[in-house]
Amino acid sequence: MIKRVPVVERIMSANDQIASENHKLLNDFRVFSMNFMASPGAGKTSLIELTVKELANNWELSVIDGDIATSIDADRASAAGAQAIQVNTGGECHLDAVMVRSAIQQIDLGLTDLLIVENVGNLICPASFELGTHINVLISSIPEGDDKPYKYPQMYQHIDALVINKIDLLPYVDFNLEYFLKGVEILNPGLLNFQISCRTKEGIKNWTRWVAENVTSFTGEELITHL
Amino acid sequence: MIKRVPVVERIMSANDQIASENHKLLNDFRVFSMNFMASPGAGKTSLIELTVKELANNWELSVIDGDIATSIDADRASAAGAQAIQVNTGGECHLDAVMVRSAIQQIDLGLTDLLIVENVGNLICPASFELGTHINVLISSIPEGDDKPYKYPQMYQHIDALVINKIDLLPYVDFNLEYFLKGVEILNPGLLNFQISCRTKEGIKNWTRWVAENVTSFTGEELITHL
Repeated sequence: MIKRVPVVERIMSANDQIASENHKLLNDFRVFSMNFMASPGAGKTSLIELTVKELANNWELSVIDGDIATSIDADRASAAGAQAIQVNTGGECHLDAVMVRSAIQQIDLGLTDLLIVENVGNLICPASFELGTHINVLISSIPEGDDKPYKYPQMYQHIDALVINKIDLLPYVDFNLEYFLKGVEILNPGLLNFQISCRTKEGIKNWTRWVAENVTSFTGEELITHL
Repeated sequence: MIKRVPVVERIMSANDQIASENHKLLNDFRVFSMNFMASPGAGKTSLIELTVKELANNWELSVIDGDIATSIDADRASAAGAQAIQVNTGGECHLDAVMVRSAIQQIDLGLTDLLIVENVGNLICPASFELGTHINVLISSIPEGDDKPYKYPQMYQHIDALVINKIDLLPYVDFNLEYFLKGVEILNPGLLNFQISCRTKEGIKNWTRWVAENVTSFTGEELITHL
């Protein structure tokens, strides 16, 4: 009698497999990494600029900028003080693990404590492609409207932290923060959120302090100065 | 001797073929149609609401709302006074001609003068899929930033009219209108643009007058009242 042995195995997609290799490489080099996702114009690049400026005294930062065209974002990240690599996706609407692997190969990981990957501006497709980073961060923004969690649920379910940018515009637009946060809570209970304005700098210290804590606990290094 | 006859033929994609059938159907019923594209939260639904409210006294309007989830947008279009059909793309990041064909089949085209198709909120993918509508309209918005034409060139090249929404937020954000319009002009010379605010209603009459002129000249009907 042939005994059937049930084999339960997670079949990884080609993308997930390479994402897993990226993840291992980042772990080996003790590089803490974040994948920034957002609608076009929510403020990914501005938040990267501020984060780099705030943390570059204490750590080495690298940025991978995904765009369908131009190198505007990488130029801004570089000017702020990070190693910056531009990935032009050639029209593709998201980064994938292969693109990130190619970019990582151009970065000196031994000289990097924190890697920020700026995904293509898109609230849909990037949520389906793991890159191998440690956490996924969504930057939403007040002028986009308070219905976004309800309309783009997959993205809100897929993230580890939420940054709500352009909080300074609350008085000038119709945005019900309670309704917005209720949607977030339904999709991703207990999700950490940071309410900030890259323009007025409101809330930025809370955000960079949290990033710094993550880098510290991941790299095992103590903060050189307090932030 | 065999004479070779050069055959030059545009090979249409399956999507383009169905888009062409949609186009013919809309022509046959003399339905003027627009494809609204934009980032999430730029104001597609708000502009549809205002357009429907403004024009519903003179014409019959239908709206096809593309979303990855929920029927929030179709509910709003319906409340404003249009026949509204919701298309949930099941996670897909854009509408395609097949989805629009299915939706058109649920609309009474004999009772429609103007059809507005609200695409999925996305600045990238929708630009690659013709739906069969007469014109493509992009709704951009001030808080998205003035670099968007440079960063999403394909979308800006692909459109017949540009609506710049949330113009009332200009004093509160860093947005160089000249730099933005220069980018637009490079990509799409002479493109018609409407500077509006769905919130304050600034510029809305200019927009609806232009839409009304298009519907009038397409359907051959005279305006019943002046707008």
